[in-house]
Amino acid sequence: MTTELDRLAVRLREFARARDWEQFHTPKNLAMALAGEVGELVAEFQWLTSDECADLSPEIRARVRSELGDVTAYLVRLADVLGVDLVEAADAKLDENDRRYDAELYRGSARKAPPLGS
Amino acid sequence: MTTELDRLAVRLREFARARDWEQFHTPKNLAMALAGEVGELVAEFQWLTSDECADLSPEIRARVRSELGDVTAYLVRLADVLGVDLVEAADAKLDENDRRYDAELYRGSARKAPPLGS
Amino acid sequence: MTTELDRLAVRLREFARARDWEQFHTPKNLAMALAGEVGELVAEFQWLTSDECADLSPEIRARVRSELGDVTAYLVRLADVLGVDLVEAADAKLDENDRRYDAELYRGSARKAPPLGS
Amino acid sequence: MTTELDRLAVRLREFARARDWEQFHTPKNLAMALAGEVGELVAEFQWLTSDECADLSPEIRARVRSELGDVTAYLVRLADVLGVDLVEAADAKLDENDRRYDAELYRGSARKAPPLGS
Repeated sequence: MTTELDRLAVRLREFARARDWEQFHTPKNLAMALAGEVGELVAEFQWLTSDECADLSPEIRARVRSELGDVTAYLVRLADVLGVDLVEAADAKLDENDRRYDAELYRGSARKAPPLGS
Repeated sequence: MTTELDRLAVRLREFARARDWEQFHTPKNLAMALAGEVGELVAEFQWLTSDECADLSPEIRARVRSELGDVTAYLVRLADVLGVDLVEAADAKLDENDRRYDAELYRGSARKAPPLGS
Repeated sequence: MTTELDRLAVRLREFARARDWEQFHTPKNLAMALAGEVGELVAEFQWLTSDECADLSPEIRARVRSELGDVTAYLVRLADVLGVDLVEAADAKLDENDRRYDAELYRGSARKAPPLGS
Repeated sequence: MTTELDRLAVRLREFARARDWEQFHTPKNLAMALAGEVGELVAEFQWLTSDECADLSPEIRARVRSELGDVTAYLVRLADVLGVDLVEAADAKLDENDRRYDAELYRGSARKAPPLGS
């Protein structure tokens, strides 16, 4: 079955091939590009309070959505180049975190453990 | 239709709810967590040459996959909290880039334009 | 006059030379290493409220100081390899921001402009 | 003795005070701002080869210098708010790395250990 991420990966592959940009898309370079885009995403939230983050203005919301699109594109492209299935990788981490962070023990405390683990 | 990312978003939502960690999962905090995980991913590639990146050792490959899982988990959680569809957002950016970076004009040059745009 | 940052740059240069690690210290690799360390720094603050950030526990404070040391080391090393004077570069940006963000006009508002500019 | 970084910290403090921006300059927010600027710095190098990084064009060089200025400004501001001496923190990490990475043992290999440590 072709999933939505497979379809996106193929689109990105063809985008790179049509421009002969595959030569630039090494894992190292794509990881840097991902870091750059995440930096832009973080910058959108840096001066906002928690309350302001919960109720974004339409302008900021549109910019955040656009940055999330960039982050997703580079993440999917990087995973495709490396041959990693992102959803399987995330599920594997969540399986591990289910074991590591007992729901009762860690209830309500981010001090004891980083949510979603690290 | 429920997609694989919807399913992952629900799993993350339940993981947070079971531990009463929703209070920590503000967009601001999740963007920081995403930046932290991307930092760990970048660190895996920092001293490798392009050739070494193309042929990772099994140990590094396993660590990279694990970091990609963390990045995916936080990205999907952040998008869920914000109500943004990541694949739609990525497709919208690619539509824009298809227009912006004419395949003939930009062929083979990352100098003229950042691949996948910014 | 030799400044404290010059002295630190020389120490880092000698550290790299003694281990024959200069080959790894390209601007590209050092920028990645800097991003990795900043990711670790950000991760220290990700689940803390503003109040908690203002009054760090001794353990977190020690880790933050250690991360700040890493960030400073890579930043000074990167600037040394590039031949850039960090303090001059920061002053140049502040000169620009003094002109750009009139103190009266921007008083109390981070919405109108990003503090310290971007 | 007042050092160049002390002088820069005071300049940044006054810049923030004149605009009533101290309220935004929490450690959490400043760490995010630092991450955003480092993202911009990394983006300058992302598509360049090692050779191209070693011989930057005047345009890229000017942009890199400007980003280094931003990174330095936020790093010094963050350290000032936290009351951390950056040079002491960096020296402490280097003392530790001198012990940890024996020069003979680690010569020429970034595989065995991350240069400057982590």
